[in-house]
Amino acid sequence: MRINSEYEKMPGSYLFAEVARRLKVYKEQHPDADIIRLGIGDVTQPLVPKVIEAMHKAVDEMGNADTFRGYGPDFGYDFLVNAIRDNDYAPLGIALDYDEVFISDGAKCDVGNIQELFSQDAMIAITDPVYPVYVDSNAMAGRAGNYIQDRWDRLVYLPCNAENGFIPPLPESKVDVIYLCYPNNPTGTVLTKAQLKVFVDWAKENDAIIIFDAAYKAFITQKEIPHSIYEVEGARDVAIECCSYSKTAGFTGTRCAYTIIPHEVCGKNAKGEKVEINAMWKRRMATKFNGVSYPVQRAAEAIYTPEGKAQVEQVIDGYLANARVIREGLLARGIQAYGGENSPYIWLKVPGMDSWSFFDTLLDRCHVVGTPGAGFGPSGEGYFRLTAFNTAEATREAVARFDRLK
Amino acid sequence: MRINSEYEKMPGSYLFAEVARRLKVYKEQHPDADIIRLGIGDVTQPLVPKVIEAMHKAVDEMGNADTFRGYGPDFGYDFLVNAIRDNDYAPLGIALDYDEVFISDGAKCDVGNIQELFSQDAMIAITDPVYPVYVDSNAMAGRAGNYIQDRWDRLVYLPCNAENGFIPPLPESKVDVIYLCYPNNPTGTVLTKAQLKVFVDWAKENDAIIIFDAAYKAFITQKEIPHSIYEVEGARDVAIECCSYSKTAGFTGTRCAYTIIPHEVCGKNAKGEKVEINAMWKRRMATKFNGVSYPVQRAAEAIYTPEGKAQVEQVIDGYLANARVIREGLLARGIQAYGGENSPYIWLKVPGMDSWSFFDTLLDRCHVVGTPGAGFGPSGEGYFRLTAFNTAEATREAVARFDRLK
Repeated sequence: MRINSEYEKMPGSYLFAEVARRLKVYKEQHPDADIIRLGIGDVTQPLVPKVIEAMHKAVDEMGNADTFRGYGPDFGYDFLVNAIRDNDYAPLGIALDYDEVFISDGAKCDVGNIQELFSQDAMIAITDPVYPVYVDSNAMAGRAGNYIQDRWDRLVYLPCNAENGFIPPLPESKVDVIYLCYPNNPTGTVLTKAQLKVFVDWAKENDAIIIFDAAYKAFITQKEIPHSIYEVEGARDVAIECCSYSKTAGFTGTRCAYTIIPHEVCGKNAKGEKVEINAMWKRRMATKFNGVSYPVQRAAEAIYTPEGKAQVEQVIDGYLANARVIREGLLARGIQAYGGENSPYIWLKVPGMDSWSFFDTLLDRCHVVGTPGAGFGPSGEGYFRLTAFNTAEATREAVARFDRLK
Repeated sequence: MRINSEYEKMPGSYLFAEVARRLKVYKEQHPDADIIRLGIGDVTQPLVPKVIEAMHKAVDEMGNADTFRGYGPDFGYDFLVNAIRDNDYAPLGIALDYDEVFISDGAKCDVGNIQELFSQDAMIAITDPVYPVYVDSNAMAGRAGNYIQDRWDRLVYLPCNAENGFIPPLPESKVDVIYLCYPNNPTGTVLTKAQLKVFVDWAKENDAIIIFDAAYKAFITQKEIPHSIYEVEGARDVAIECCSYSKTAGFTGTRCAYTIIPHEVCGKNAKGEKVEINAMWKRRMATKFNGVSYPVQRAAEAIYTPEGKAQVEQVIDGYLANARVIREGLLARGIQAYGGENSPYIWLKVPGMDSWSFFDTLLDRCHVVGTPGAGFGPSGEGYFRLTAFNTAEATREAVARFDRLK
C-alpha cells in the first residue's frame, strides 16, 4: 500500500506530545517534585451544575424507549443550533440561517478538517506563532511544501511579535486562505474590529477566505474587541468561524463545538465558477461524521440558560483572575508579558535563552510547566506561553516560584 | 479560494439524505400514512441499564473538582482500551498491544478518515454493493476518478450478487487497499474464515492492506463465522479493523467506536521503504482529533461488565428475531432474501422493477421505508435492503403489509 508521503515530511512529534514526553522524563528523575502545570491549555474546573443537570436528564432519556435518540441530525440538534443563533449571535446583531451552524465534537476537528475543502494547491497563510493544527493539517494534505530548518517552504507566515504589537501584516503574495485566531492562541493578544476589517477587506479583494478561530471568545473583557468576525462589515462574504465549548464551559473532556459557514462564502472551482463552501461542508460532514452525542448536545444547550450563563461566567472570571496574577507577577519581576487580559494565555518574552531551554529551566528551577514559543512557529522563538487554567492557589504558588528564575 | 474540485464530481446527495428527502415529500402528501421505517440502519431500543448507570456516574464525576476530567488521552482511556483487549479479543486468542487500539466517536469517522493515510494515487477496491462512506471518502480525496453513469472509473469494484453467493472475487488488477465489511452492510451476508483468508493471502502477496469493517459483529450467530479478521492467520500483517458500539449497544446517538491497527501493518513510502500505519494514524488522530467524551467512554466500558453483556445480548437477540421475521416473511411471499441470520440486514431481490421504483412502491403500497440497493453501488441495482432495527410489533406489521405488494 502506497502511503501519503506528506506525513514523512513532518518534523518531530506534535508539540504537546513533546511537552508531555519531557515532563514524564523529568518526573521519573524527580519523583518528589511538586509540579504545577501552566502548559497545555486544559481546564481544571468541573462542569457547572446546570450542565450536569441537563446531562443527567438526557442520559435518562437515552435509557427510556419513549425518549431514546438514535442518530441525530448530521449537523446538530435544532435545540442547540437555535440556542447558538439566539444567544451567541442575535445579541451581536448577527442573523444566522439555521443551516449555517454546524455542531461538532470539537473545534480541533473542525479547524483540522476544513482544509479538505481547499484545492490541493491552495496557498495558505497563517499568523506566526500559531496553533499547530492549522499548519499540520495542511502539511498532511501536501499544501505546506517541505519543512526546512524551522518552517514550511510553501506556507505564508505572518509574523506577530512585540515589534509589531502582535498585529499580523497582510500577506505579501496571493493566498487562498488565511487562518486567524482571536483572542489569539498562543499570544493571548486580540484584534479590534478595525484591525480585523483590514483582513476582511483584503480577503474580499483577493478572492481569499478567512478561517476565524474564536475558541477563546468567552474571555473577552474589553468592549471594543469583537466576539465574532461577523461583527465586521463584509465578513459574511469571506469568513468561516469556529467556536468551542472547551474553554467557554470546560468541555475539553466533554467534547462539543460549532462552526459557522455563511452561504455567501464561496470558493472557485477549476473553471472559475463560484461554489458555496456551506454546501461542500454539508457533504463532507454527512459523509465522514455522524453527529455529536445527544447528552453532550443537551449539556451544551444548558450553558445558554440564565443559570448556566451565570455559572459559566463565574468560572471564566476565575480563570481571568489567574491570568491577571500571572501577567502582573511576570511584569513585577521585570519579564515582558503580553495577553492575559482578554485571554487565558500569557505570552512572555524569554529572558536570555531559547524557548525550549526556558521550558527546561522553568521546570527544573520552579517545577512549573509551560509551553515553549518555538513550538508554535519560528516567530515564537524567544517567547513562552503560560495558561490561566490551573487553580487560583496553584497559580499564585507558581508565580511566587518565578523568583527562583533570577 | 480555489476549492477541492473532486466534490463537484460526486453524484447527487448522500444515499440516506435522498431517502429522507423522498420520505419527507411522501409524508407531506400523505400526512395520515402510518409509516414503518425499515430503512436507515438506526437502532430503536434504549441504552441498557448498566450503560445508563455508568454514564450517570461519569457525569457526576465531571461535576466534581476532585474527579473532573479535561482532555483525555488522544487514543482513548486505558479503562476502555483494556476492556476491549480483554473482552473482544483475548477470548478469540488475539493478543493486541495497548497502543494498537484507538477509541473514536464513530466507525463512520474512522472508515472515512483512514484514507488520509493512503497515497494520492493509491488504487482502491471495494465490494459492490457497499457502504457508501468507503467510496465517497476516497472520491473526495480524488482517488475514485470520475463518476460515469453508475460508477467511478478509478475504483476497482468486486461485484457481490446472488450468482456468486455474495462472495467477492479477488481484484484482477493491482490495488493498494481493499475495503471489506463482514457481516456485510448492505447484503447481510458473511464470510467464513477460509473465505476471508483468501483476501488476507492476496493482500500479503500483493502489498495491499485490508480495511475490515466489523461494525456488525455482535449479530454473528454461527460458530464458523469469525468475529474479527485477526482470527485469520496472517491478518495482523495486512488488516486494519474498525468496530463500533452503534449497533452492538445502541450507541448510534451516543457515539463511540474503535479501530485496531496492528504494528505489523505497513505501507510503502515513495522510496519503497516500509512505514508503520499505526504510527501514521497516531499522528493523524493527535493532530485532528481530541478524544471521545469521558462519560461516553465510561458508558462503553459498562457494556463489558457481566450485567452489561447480558443486557446488550438481549437487545441484539430482539433485533435478530426481527431479522428472522422479515427474512421468513419475504421467503414465504416468494421474494428471494439473503442475510438476516448473522446480521440485522436483509437483502432482497426486487421483483420486476428497479430498486428506486421499489422504494417508491413499498412506501406507497405498504407505507414501509427501506433502502434501494442501487444506492449502494451498481451491483445493488435490482436489490433492496430492509433492517431489523424497528420494534418487534412494527416489524411484524411491516411484514404483514408485504401482502399488498402482490
